[in-house]
Amino acid sequence: MTALKSVTSKKLYMGRLKHGADLLEEITGACRKENIKLGRVEAIGAVKRARLGYYDQKTREYKFFTIDRPAEITSLIGNVSIKDGEPMVHAHVTLADDDGKAYGGHLAPETEVFACEIIIEALEGPAFNRQFDKETGLPLWDM
Amino acid sequence: MTALKSVTSKKLYMGRLKHGADLLEEITGACRKENIKLGRVEAIGAVKRARLGYYDQKTREYKFFTIDRPAEITSLIGNVSIKDGEPMVHAHVTLADDDGKAYGGHLAPETEVFACEIIIEALEGPAFNRQFDKETGLPLWDM
Amino acid sequence: MTALKSVTSKKLYMGRLKHGADLLEEITGACRKENIKLGRVEAIGAVKRARLGYYDQKTREYKFFTIDRPAEITSLIGNVSIKDGEPMVHAHVTLADDDGKAYGGHLAPETEVFACEIIIEALEGPAFNRQFDKETGLPLWDM
Repeated sequence: MTALKSVTSKKLYMGRLKHGADLLEEITGACRKENIKLGRVEAIGAVKRARLGYYDQKTREYKFFTIDRPAEITSLIGNVSIKDGEPMVHAHVTLADDDGKAYGGHLAPETEVFACEIIIEALEGPAFNRQFDKETGLPLWDM
Repeated sequence: MTALKSVTSKKLYMGRLKHGADLLEEITGACRKENIKLGRVEAIGAVKRARLGYYDQKTREYKFFTIDRPAEITSLIGNVSIKDGEPMVHAHVTLADDDGKAYGGHLAPETEVFACEIIIEALEGPAFNRQFDKETGLPLWDM
Repeated sequence: MTALKSVTSKKLYMGRLKHGADLLEEITGACRKENIKLGRVEAIGAVKRARLGYYDQKTREYKFFTIDRPAEITSLIGNVSIKDGEPMVHAHVTLADDDGKAYGGHLAPETEVFACEIIIEALEGPAFNRQFDKETGLPLWDM
Protein backbone atom coordinates (compact mmCIF):
# COMPACT_ATOMS: atom_id res chain seq x y z
CA MET A 1 0.00 0.00 0.00
CA THR A 2 1.05 3.56 -0.60
CA ALA A 3 1.75 4.96 2.84
CA LEU A 4 2.80 8.52 3.51
CA LYS A 5 3.59 9.84 6.94
CA SER A 6 3.81 13.40 8.11
CA VAL A 7 7.33 14.46 9.03
CA THR A 8 8.80 17.83 10.00
CA SER A 9 11.99 19.61 9.07
CA LYS A 10 14.36 19.64 12.01
CA LYS A 11 17.68 20.97 10.79
CA LEU A 12 19.52 21.66 7.53
CA TYR A 13 23.17 20.96 6.87
CA MET A 14 25.15 22.20 3.89
CA GLY A 15 28.75 21.58 3.06
CA ARG A 16 31.26 19.66 1.07
CA LEU A 17 32.64 16.16 1.27
CA LYS A 18 36.27 15.26 1.62
CA HIS A 19 38.25 14.69 -1.55
CA GLY A 20 39.03 10.99 -1.87
CA ALA A 21 36.35 9.84 0.56
CA ASP A 22 33.92 7.02 -0.13
CA LEU A 23 30.79 8.92 -1.18
CA LEU A 24 28.20 6.68 0.49
CA GLU A 25 30.26 6.05 3.64
CA GLU A 26 30.98 9.74 4.03
CA ILE A 27 27.33 10.75 3.89
CA THR A 28 26.44 7.92 6.26
CA GLY A 29 29.22 8.99 8.63
CA ALA A 30 27.98 12.59 8.62
CA CYS A 31 24.47 11.39 9.51
CA ARG A 32 25.82 9.29 12.38
CA LYS A 33 27.96 12.15 13.64
CA GLU A 34 25.01 14.57 13.58
CA ASN A 35 22.66 11.90 14.91
CA ILE A 36 20.37 12.10 11.87
CA LYS A 37 18.00 9.15 11.86
CA LEU A 38 15.55 10.46 9.32
CA GLY A 39 16.24 12.81 6.47
CA ARG A 40 16.67 13.72 2.86
CA VAL A 41 19.86 14.26 0.93
CA GLU A 42 20.78 16.01 -2.31
CA ALA A 43 24.17 16.61 -3.87
CA ILE A 44 26.08 17.54 -7.00
CA GLY A 45 29.78 17.18 -7.70
CA ALA A 46 32.17 14.76 -9.33
CA VAL A 47 33.61 11.33 -8.63
CA LYS A 48 36.92 9.72 -9.47
CA ARG A 49 35.20 6.40 -10.03
CA ALA A 50 31.83 4.92 -9.18
CA ARG A 51 30.26 1.67 -8.11
CA LEU A 52 26.57 1.48 -8.78
CA GLY A 53 23.84 -1.09 -8.31
CA TYR A 54 20.92 -2.19 -10.40
CA TYR A 55 18.30 -4.31 -8.69
CA ASP A 56 17.30 -7.29 -10.79
CA GLN A 57 13.56 -7.49 -10.17
CA LYS A 58 13.41 -11.14 -11.27
CA THR A 59 16.36 -12.67 -9.44
CA ARG A 60 15.87 -10.19 -6.55
CA GLU A 61 19.56 -9.48 -6.36
CA TYR A 62 21.56 -6.33 -6.84
CA LYS A 63 23.91 -6.42 -9.77
CA PHE A 64 26.84 -4.10 -9.08
CA PHE A 65 29.08 -2.54 -11.67
CA THR A 66 32.08 -0.26 -11.53
CA ILE A 67 32.64 2.77 -13.70
CA ASP A 68 36.35 3.22 -13.46
CA ARG A 69 36.72 6.75 -14.71
CA PRO A 70 35.97 10.29 -13.52
CA ALA A 71 32.43 11.57 -13.95
CA GLU A 72 30.24 14.48 -12.98
CA ILE A 73 27.48 13.79 -10.44
CA THR A 74 24.54 15.46 -12.16
CA SER A 75 22.23 14.40 -9.36
CA LEU A 76 22.36 12.58 -6.07
CA ILE A 77 19.00 12.19 -4.38
CA GLY A 78 18.54 10.14 -1.26
CA ASN A 79 17.02 9.61 2.12
CA VAL A 80 18.08 8.61 5.61
CA SER A 81 16.23 6.08 7.72
CA ILE A 82 16.93 3.20 10.10
CA LYS A 83 18.09 -0.28 9.18
CA ASP A 84 19.16 -2.75 11.85
CA GLY A 85 19.07 0.06 14.42
CA GLU A 86 21.51 2.29 12.54
CA PRO A 87 21.08 5.28 10.21
CA MET A 88 21.17 4.10 6.63
CA VAL A 89 21.55 6.32 3.59
CA HIS A 90 19.73 5.21 0.46
CA ALA A 91 20.81 7.28 -2.51
CA HIS A 92 20.58 7.11 -6.28
CA VAL A 93 22.95 8.99 -8.56
CA THR A 94 23.07 10.14 -12.14
CA LEU A 95 26.57 10.62 -13.54
CA ALA A 96 27.88 12.13 -16.77
CA ASP A 97 30.94 11.32 -18.83
CA ASP A 98 33.28 13.70 -20.62
CA ASP A 99 31.01 13.64 -23.68
CA GLY A 100 27.92 14.22 -21.54
CA LYS A 101 26.62 10.68 -21.76
CA ALA A 102 24.66 9.89 -18.61
CA TYR A 103 24.43 6.73 -16.56
CA GLY A 104 23.26 6.01 -13.07
CA GLY A 105 21.96 3.68 -10.45
CA HIS A 106 21.85 2.82 -6.77
CA LEU A 107 24.86 4.34 -5.00
CA ALA A 108 27.12 1.61 -3.63
CA PRO A 109 30.26 1.78 -1.50
CA GLU A 110 33.55 2.27 -3.38
CA THR A 111 32.42 5.39 -5.20
CA GLU A 112 35.23 7.88 -4.67
CA VAL A 113 34.57 11.61 -4.19
CA PHE A 114 36.45 14.12 -6.29
CA ALA A 115 34.35 17.04 -5.04
CA CYS A 116 30.83 17.00 -3.69
CA GLU A 117 28.48 19.71 -2.44
CA ILE A 118 25.72 18.34 -0.29
CA ILE A 119 22.59 19.38 1.55
CA ILE A 120 21.17 17.12 4.23
CA GLU A 121 17.82 17.92 5.79
CA ALA A 122 17.29 16.19 9.11
CA LEU A 123 13.65 15.27 9.64
CA GLU A 124 11.57 14.35 12.64
CA GLY A 125 8.69 11.96 12.53
CA PRO A 126 7.54 8.44 13.22
CA ALA A 127 10.10 5.65 12.91
CA PHE A 128 11.10 4.74 9.37
CA ASN A 129 12.57 1.26 9.79
CA ARG A 130 13.70 -0.86 6.89
CA GLN A 131 12.47 -4.44 6.99
CA PHE A 132 12.58 -7.20 4.41
CA ASP A 133 9.67 -6.72 2.02
CA LYS A 134 8.30 -9.97 0.58
CA GLU A 135 6.84 -8.41 -2.54
CA THR A 136 10.10 -6.94 -3.80
CA GLY A 137 12.84 -8.67 -1.82
CA LEU A 138 14.11 -5.23 -0.77
CA PRO A 139 14.61 -3.66 2.68
CA LEU A 140 11.70 -1.22 2.55
CA TRP A 141 10.04 0.92 5.19
CA ASP A 142 7.77 -1.09 7.40
CA MET A 143 4.76 1.21 7.37
CA MET B 1 8.84 36.86 -18.22
CA THR B 2 10.64 35.14 -15.39
CA ALA B 3 8.22 35.28 -12.47
CA LEU B 4 8.96 33.93 -9.03
CA LYS B 5 6.50 34.02 -6.19
CA SER B 6 7.13 33.61 -2.52
CA VAL B 7 5.67 30.39 -1.11
CA THR B 8 5.95 28.80 2.32
CA SER B 9 6.47 25.25 3.46
CA LYS B 10 3.29 23.87 4.98
CA LYS B 11 3.79 20.18 5.57
CA LEU B 12 6.16 17.37 4.61
CA TYR B 13 5.15 13.83 3.72
CA MET B 14 7.52 10.90 3.36
CA GLY B 15 6.71 7.34 2.47
CA ARG B 16 6.62 4.69 -0.16
CA LEU B 17 4.37 3.98 -3.09
CA LYS B 18 2.46 0.79 -3.65
CA HIS B 19 4.12 -1.93 -5.66
CA GLY B 20 2.43 -2.18 -9.06
CA ALA B 21 0.81 1.24 -8.91
CA ASP B 22 0.86 3.76 -11.73
CA LEU B 23 3.65 6.11 -10.64
CA LEU B 24 2.12 9.39 -11.80
CA GLU B 25 -1.45 8.49 -10.80
CA GLU B 26 -0.31 7.35 -7.37
CA ILE B 27 1.50 10.60 -6.61
CA THR B 28 -1.47 12.57 -7.93
CA GLY B 29 -3.85 10.49 -5.80
CA ALA B 30 -1.74 11.11 -2.70
CA CYS B 31 -1.87 14.86 -3.35
CA ARG B 32 -5.63 14.78 -3.76
CA LYS B 33 -6.07 12.69 -0.63
CA GLU B 34 -3.92 15.07 1.42
CA ASN B 35 -5.47 18.09 -0.30
CA ILE B 36 -2.11 19.32 -1.62
CA LYS B 37 -2.69 22.02 -4.23
CA LEU B 38 0.84 23.37 -4.35
CA GLY B 39 4.03 21.49 -3.67
CA ARG B 40 7.28 19.89 -4.63
CA VAL B 41 8.05 16.21 -5.07
CA GLU B 42 11.20 14.11 -5.11
CA ALA B 43 11.63 10.36 -5.30
CA ILE B 44 13.98 7.48 -6.00
CA GLY B 45 13.16 3.84 -6.60
CA ALA B 46 12.58 1.48 -9.47
CA VAL B 47 9.92 0.87 -12.11
CA LYS B 48 8.77 -2.26 -13.89
CA ARG B 49 8.27 -0.31 -17.07
CA ALA B 50 8.01 3.34 -17.99
CA ARG B 51 6.15 5.63 -20.33
CA LEU B 52 7.84 8.96 -20.87
CA GLY B 53 7.20 12.05 -22.91
CA TYR B 54 9.37 14.36 -24.93
CA TYR B 55 7.86 17.66 -25.98
CA ASP B 56 8.54 18.41 -29.61
CA GLN B 57 9.17 22.15 -29.55
CA LYS B 58 8.44 22.52 -33.27
CA THR B 59 5.23 20.52 -33.69
CA ARG B 60 4.18 21.47 -30.12
CA GLU B 61 3.12 17.95 -29.34
CA TYR B 62 4.31 15.44 -26.80
CA LYS B 63 5.87 12.35 -28.28
CA PHE B 64 5.41 9.47 -25.86
CA PHE B 65 7.50 6.33 -25.75
CA THR B 66 7.44 3.20 -23.65
CA ILE B 67 10.44 1.56 -22.06
CA ASP B 68 9.19 -1.93 -21.52
CA ARG B 69 11.74 -3.20 -19.04
CA PRO B 70 12.66 -2.67 -15.38
CA ALA B 71 14.79 0.35 -14.51
CA GLU B 72 16.07 2.26 -11.51
CA ILE B 73 14.60 5.72 -10.93
CA THR B 74 17.77 7.73 -10.35
CA SER B 75 15.75 10.90 -9.92
CA LEU B 76 12.18 12.04 -9.92
CA ILE B 77 11.72 15.77 -9.47
CA GLY B 78 8.38 17.43 -9.74
CA ASN B 79 5.86 19.96 -8.59
CA VAL B 80 2.17 20.14 -7.75
CA SER B 81 -0.11 22.91 -8.94
CA ILE B 82 -3.62 23.39 -10.29
CA LYS B 83 -4.89 22.56 -13.78
CA ASP B 84 -8.58 22.73 -14.62
CA GLY B 85 -9.35 23.15 -10.92
CA GLU B 86 -7.60 19.95 -9.86
CA PRO B 87 -4.16 19.21 -8.37
CA MET B 88 -1.77 18.23 -11.17
CA VAL B 89 1.62 16.64 -10.69
CA HIS B 90 4.28 17.59 -13.21
CA ALA B 91 7.32 15.37 -12.83
CA HIS B 92 10.41 14.48 -14.81
CA VAL B 93 12.36 11.29 -14.25
CA THR B 94 15.77 9.92 -14.99
CA LEU B 95 15.98 6.14 -15.21
CA ALA B 96 18.90 3.72 -15.46
CA ASP B 97 19.18 0.34 -17.14
CA ASP B 98 20.95 -2.76 -15.90
CA ASP B 99 24.20 -1.53 -17.47
CA GLY B 100 23.76 1.93 -15.94
CA LYS B 101 22.73 3.63 -19.17
CA ALA B 102 20.45 6.55 -18.35
CA TYR B 103 17.37 7.84 -20.10
CA GLY B 104 14.57 10.10 -19.04
CA GLY B 105 11.78 12.46 -19.82
CA HIS B 106 8.41 13.78 -18.79
CA LEU B 107 6.65 11.25 -16.56
CA ALA B 108 3.51 9.95 -18.24
CA PRO B 109 0.77 7.60 -17.02
CA GLU B 110 1.45 3.86 -17.47
CA THR B 111 4.77 3.92 -15.64
CA GLU B 112 4.54 1.05 -13.17
CA VAL B 113 6.09 1.24 -9.70
CA PHE B 114 8.36 -1.55 -8.51
CA ALA B 115 9.39 0.35 -5.37
CA CYS B 116 9.44 4.09 -4.79
CA GLU B 117 10.46 6.26 -1.84
CA ILE B 118 8.98 9.71 -2.04
CA ILE B 119 8.99 13.04 -0.26
CA ILE B 120 6.22 15.53 -0.96
CA GLU B 121 6.44 19.02 0.45
CA ALA B 122 3.09 20.78 0.58
CA LEU B 123 3.44 24.51 -0.01
CA GLU B 124 1.25 27.51 0.61
CA GLY B 125 1.20 30.58 -1.56
CA PRO B 126 -0.62 32.37 -4.32
CA ALA B 127 -2.52 30.30 -6.88
CA PHE B 128 -0.37 28.43 -9.38
CA ASN B 129 -2.82 27.71 -12.19
CA ARG B 130 -1.79 26.11 -15.45
CA GLN B 131 -3.13 27.83 -18.54
CA PHE B 132 -2.33 27.38 -22.19
CA ASP B 133 0.84 29.33 -22.98
CA LYS B 134 0.97 30.70 -26.52
CA GLU B 135 4.73 30.92 -26.71
CA THR B 136 5.38 27.25 -25.99
CA GLY B 137 2.04 25.51 -26.50
CA LEU B 138 2.35 24.10 -22.98
CA PRO B 139 0.06 24.43 -19.94
CA LEU B 140 2.27 26.76 -17.91
CA TRP B 141 1.66 28.76 -14.77
CA ASP B 142 -0.33 31.88 -15.47
CA MET B 143 1.76 34.35 -13.50
CA MET C 1 37.89 17.46 5.19
CA THR C 2 34.20 16.86 5.10
CA ALA C 3 32.67 19.97 6.60
CA LEU C 4 28.98 20.52 7.12
CA LYS C 5 27.50 23.66 8.55
CA SER C 6 24.08 24.23 9.98
CA VAL C 7 21.93 26.50 7.85
CA THR C 8 18.28 27.53 8.12
CA SER C 9 15.53 27.92 5.59
CA LYS C 10 14.73 31.58 5.08
CA LYS C 11 12.35 31.84 2.16
CA LEU C 12 11.04 29.75 -0.72
CA TYR C 13 10.46 30.97 -4.27
CA MET C 14 8.61 29.09 -6.96
CA GLY C 15 7.97 30.11 -10.52
CA ARG C 16 8.91 29.85 -14.11
CA LEU C 17 11.75 31.19 -16.19
CA LYS C 18 11.38 33.31 -19.27
CA HIS C 19 11.20 31.54 -22.61
CA GLY C 20 14.45 32.18 -24.51
CA ALA C 21 16.46 33.23 -21.46
CA ASP C 22 19.93 31.95 -20.65
CA LEU C 23 19.17 29.30 -18.02
CA LEU C 24 22.17 29.89 -15.75
CA GLU C 25 22.11 33.69 -16.09
CA GLU C 26 18.39 33.80 -15.40
CA ILE C 27 18.67 31.84 -12.16
CA THR C 28 21.65 33.93 -11.12
CA GLY C 29 19.76 37.12 -11.92
CA ALA C 30 16.79 35.98 -9.85
CA CYS C 31 19.10 35.34 -6.89
CA ARG C 32 20.66 38.78 -7.22
CA LYS C 33 17.26 40.44 -7.52
CA GLU C 34 15.97 38.66 -4.41
CA ASN C 35 19.29 39.14 -2.62
CA ILE C 36 19.82 35.39 -2.15
CA LYS C 37 23.39 34.72 -1.08
CA LEU C 38 22.94 31.16 0.07
CA GLY C 39 20.46 28.65 -1.19
CA ARG C 40 19.42 25.55 -3.02
CA VAL C 41 17.82 25.26 -6.44
CA GLU C 42 15.82 22.61 -8.24
CA ALA C 43 14.09 22.71 -11.61
CA ILE C 44 12.56 20.73 -14.43
CA GLY C 45 11.64 21.86 -17.91
CA ALA C 46 13.09 21.93 -21.38
CA VAL C 47 15.87 23.73 -23.23
CA LYS C 48 16.23 24.78 -26.86
CA ARG C 49 19.93 23.99 -26.70
CA ALA C 50 22.48 23.42 -23.96
CA ARG C 51 26.08 24.12 -23.13
CA LEU C 52 27.50 21.85 -20.46
CA GLY C 53 30.84 21.39 -18.78
CA TYR C 54 32.81 18.37 -17.73
CA TYR C 55 35.71 18.99 -15.37
CA ASP C 56 38.83 17.14 -16.46
CA GLN C 57 40.28 15.99 -13.15
CA LYS C 58 43.77 15.52 -14.64
CA THR C 59 44.24 18.72 -16.63
CA ARG C 60 42.10 20.62 -14.10
CA GLU C 61 40.19 22.39 -16.79
CA TYR C 62 36.55 22.42 -17.75
CA LYS C 63 35.80 20.98 -21.15
CA PHE C 64 32.64 22.57 -22.50
CA PHE C 65 30.39 21.11 -25.15
CA THR C 66 27.24 22.26 -26.86
CA ILE C 67 24.17 20.17 -27.48
CA ASP C 68 22.51 22.04 -30.28
CA ARG C 69 19.04 20.57 -30.14
CA PRO C 70 15.97 20.71 -27.89
CA ALA C 71 15.96 18.50 -24.80
CA GLU C 72 13.94 17.90 -21.67
CA ILE C 73 15.56 18.94 -18.37
CA THR C 74 14.96 15.82 -16.30
CA SER C 75 16.76 17.36 -13.34
CA LEU C 76 18.47 20.57 -12.39
CA ILE C 77 19.99 20.55 -8.92
CA GLY C 78 22.12 23.38 -7.64
CA ASN C 79 23.18 25.70 -4.90
CA VAL C 80 23.80 29.39 -4.38
CA SER C 81 26.84 30.76 -2.57
CA ILE C 82 29.33 33.60 -2.85
CA LYS C 83 32.22 33.88 -5.30
CA ASP C 84 34.21 37.08 -5.60
CA GLY C 85 31.65 38.85 -3.44
CA GLU C 86 28.70 38.01 -5.69
CA PRO C 87 25.98 35.31 -5.57
CA MET C 88 27.04 32.39 -7.75
CA VAL C 89 24.77 29.59 -8.88
CA HIS C 90 26.40 26.17 -9.24
CA ALA C 91 24.04 23.76 -10.96
CA HIS C 92 24.22 20.40 -12.67
CA VAL C 93 21.63 19.21 -15.15
CA THR C 94 20.45 15.98 -16.67
CA LEU C 95 18.82 16.29 -20.07
CA ALA C 96 16.92 13.86 -22.27
CA ASP C 97 16.63 13.60 -26.04
CA ASP C 98 13.57 12.78 -28.12
CA ASP C 99 14.36 9.06 -27.77
CA GLY C 100 14.86 9.40 -24.01
CA LYS C 101 18.63 9.14 -24.11
CA ALA C 102 20.09 11.09 -21.19
CA TYR C 103 23.14 13.28 -20.94
CA GLY C 104 24.28 15.86 -18.50
CA GLY C 105 26.96 17.92 -16.83
CA HIS C 106 27.83 21.21 -15.22
CA LEU C 107 25.42 23.91 -16.38
CA ALA C 108 27.25 26.57 -18.38
CA PRO C 109 26.07 29.87 -19.87
CA GLU C 110 24.49 29.67 -23.35
CA THR C 111 21.89 27.08 -22.36
CA GLU C 112 18.60 28.47 -23.67
CA VAL C 113 15.33 28.02 -21.79
CA PHE C 114 12.30 26.66 -23.62
CA ALA C 115 10.27 26.33 -20.40
CA CYS C 116 11.51 25.88 -16.86
CA GLU C 117 9.75 25.47 -13.51
CA ILE C 118 12.01 26.28 -10.62
CA ILE C 119 12.08 26.29 -6.84
CA ILE C 120 14.73 28.33 -5.05
CA GLU C 121 15.12 28.00 -1.30
CA ALA C 122 16.96 30.92 0.26
CA LEU C 123 19.06 29.85 3.22
CA GLU C 124 20.65 31.64 6.11
CA GLY C 125 23.87 30.57 7.71
CA PRO C 126 27.58 31.18 7.94
CA ALA C 127 29.36 32.52 4.86
CA PHE C 128 29.84 30.03 2.04
CA ASN C 129 32.63 31.60 0.01
CA ARG C 130 34.21 29.92 -2.97
CA GLN C 131 37.99 29.98 -2.99
CA PHE C 132 40.53 28.22 -5.15
CA ASP C 133 41.01 24.71 -3.78
CA LYS C 134 44.50 23.31 -4.31
CA GLU C 135 43.50 19.68 -4.16
CA THR C 136 41.00 19.85 -7.04
CA GLY C 137 41.74 23.11 -8.83
CA LEU C 138 38.10 24.09 -8.33
CA PRO C 139 36.51 27.10 -6.61
CA LEU C 140 35.18 25.25 -3.56
CA TRP C 141 33.73 26.48 -0.29
CA ASP C 142 36.42 27.66 2.08
CA MET C 143 35.25 25.89 5.23
